[in-house]
Amino acid sequence: MTEKQLKKICAAIKPLDKKAMTMARERLDNLTKPPGSLGRLEETARRLCGIRKSLSPAIKKKIILTFAADHGVAAEGVSTVPREVTRQMVVNFMAGGAGVNVLGRHVGAEVRVIDVGVAAELELEGLYSRKIKAGTDNIMTGPAMSRDEALSAISVGMEMAAEAISDGADILGTGDMGIANTTPSAALFSALLGLDPAEVTGRGTGIDDKTLEHKIAVVANALKVNKTRLTSALDVLAALGGLEIAAICGMIIEAARQRIPVVVDGFISSAGALAAMKMNPLILDYCFFSHMSAEQGHKLFFAAIDRQPLLHLDLRLGEGTGAALAMNIIEAGVKILTEMATFSEAGVSC
Amino acid sequence: MTEKQLKKICAAIKPLDKKAMTMARERLDNLTKPPGSLGRLEETARRLCGIRKSLSPAIKKKIILTFAADHGVAAEGVSTVPREVTRQMVVNFMAGGAGVNVLGRHVGAEVRVIDVGVAAELELEGLYSRKIKAGTDNIMTGPAMSRDEALSAISVGMEMAAEAISDGADILGTGDMGIANTTPSAALFSALLGLDPAEVTGRGTGIDDKTLEHKIAVVANALKVNKTRLTSALDVLAALGGLEIAAICGMIIEAARQRIPVVVDGFISSAGALAAMKMNPLILDYCFFSHMSAEQGHKLFFAAIDRQPLLHLDLRLGEGTGAALAMNIIEAGVKILTEMATFSEAGVSC
Repeated sequence: MTEKQLKKICAAIKPLDKKAMTMARERLDNLTKPPGSLGRLEETARRLCGIRKSLSPAIKKKIILTFAADHGVAAEGVSTVPREVTRQMVVNFMAGGAGVNVLGRHVGAEVRVIDVGVAAELELEGLYSRKIKAGTDNIMTGPAMSRDEALSAISVGMEMAAEAISDGADILGTGDMGIANTTPSAALFSALLGLDPAEVTGRGTGIDDKTLEHKIAVVANALKVNKTRLTSALDVLAALGGLEIAAICGMIIEAARQRIPVVVDGFISSAGALAAMKMNPLILDYCFFSHMSAEQGHKLFFAAIDRQPLLHLDLRLGEGTGAALAMNIIEAGVKILTEMATFSEAGVSC
Repeated sequence: MTEKQLKKICAAIKPLDKKAMTMARERLDNLTKPPGSLGRLEETARRLCGIRKSLSPAIKKKIILTFAADHGVAAEGVSTVPREVTRQMVVNFMAGGAGVNVLGRHVGAEVRVIDVGVAAELELEGLYSRKIKAGTDNIMTGPAMSRDEALSAISVGMEMAAEAISDGADILGTGDMGIANTTPSAALFSALLGLDPAEVTGRGTGIDDKTLEHKIAVVANALKVNKTRLTSALDVLAALGGLEIAAICGMIIEAARQRIPVVVDGFISSAGALAAMKMNPLILDYCFFSHMSAEQGHKLFFAAIDRQPLLHLDLRLGEGTGAALAMNIIEAGVKILTEMATFSEAGVSC
């Protein structure tokens, strides 16, 4: 995919359907409850109608796409966890033992795992092998990726979303795996929102004060080293991002283009979503943000886009775990709209 | 049941099992994720282990008990909704068309509806008829109930909880239906927490500023008229409460006594939980609070008990709708504990 083709795809994204949303509001207000008393479930159902152009946007098939990749910046000691764990966790995903597997099963969502840049040979049954390269380069010393590599990673995300939709998914969830990936995410938030690295850099898997200070300096340096490259959203993503973050960006773009709701997982997925929204602000309306991460900086992202996530459970695992939980809440909202009795059906005085 | 018997039952409630909670923490820290990274899911799983004295507290059967009753204070015009709607909504519950039915089905919970004081004849298949009297008396002019009536309503709650547990429920959810019942709930919060009526009185089904002012005056007057009766938690409950609120209080006591977790729905259920906790503070640890209601005053309750609810979705419907949604989150926490792979099982470096 060329940059020109990406721009064309982004330009094809349409606004929500206002008529469906108005009709959804009318139906919601006729259900046997005080108007608005199911709060965010109602808001969710209404927006889903606007996305799907339908008053009965059933959720029949949920698919979570978990993109895995490594990060050159891991060499800077920004995480407590060795880089090797990215590969090990992909093996764990395929065996069904990770958090996202458990929560995916809990909510009836299929989890598809995509190697978009793990720094190790990986051949596992069921794993989607779409490696662009064996991890990004170190953003402390230069760009994470070339622009072509970023475009390729975005393409992988788009293709995986398109395949999931063609397999029947009517809602998608994002997920990530990549040791050290809160560092490029913090760099992306800083660059794309104009925020100080100290505000958006957090403790990731649980680093101490000294390592946090170092991590902030790494993010600040990455921004400095890559300064001249920080122009368009695509260039920022290439310079500072991760291969999995670029894939998540692509997945979200394709979901919005095909009018499929996408549940954005946590801090890392939000960085991908932010890049997508910078390419076309209409994408925001196709995103449901699953949870407020315990990772510092996530709240600044929500303040910047003027949205609130659905859950506040102090999660900071990623993988798609928050997306899985939030899918269940969104499904609840849809069922309220489609299964509750109206005042006249139930013979209740309104 | 006499007051003496109630005290004996409350005194039989034991603390959580610390050993099971320590072992749960150890297991959670050995799962393939950074320690604590699943936040409140982990906290929930750990507490459930302490309640059930088990490291595998499976949730196999969920039952929501929705208690319905009318309120004499409805005559004061504190709600936008006619009193008749309590009865109509019970009919709606039994037909499966209400919010709690939809969300109960969504999470696989059975909903049992109990008439503990609806001001109308109600004979419906499947409805539990346990009417104490046809609605409370008006708290503006005297006590809502006699102490014996309150004890009877608490008994109904206990019996319904005991029956659900004997039918196999390993988690219970509370629910309420009663037009005007945010008024007695506000009065209970004010009396039991020593808060000003203006702080804890909210808009219920959606009253305007003028009606809110009137409602605050009604609550203040109820507290004044019943002043000499506001002594023990039982006396406060009898003077200001509702029959369904007393039943919820009883249900929670019985669940705690039998070491069964109970998911407390919203504002009204929290008033019942507060009365129970005043009878024995250990009860707090058996309660999972489902959501922060949009009803003003709920946040003051959580501040007073130093707990946070699981969900923040601006719900204000009651019925057990929030309890249903939260059951799903609690179940997710249990599955994390019991289904995720450990570092050694998965061969992941910790």
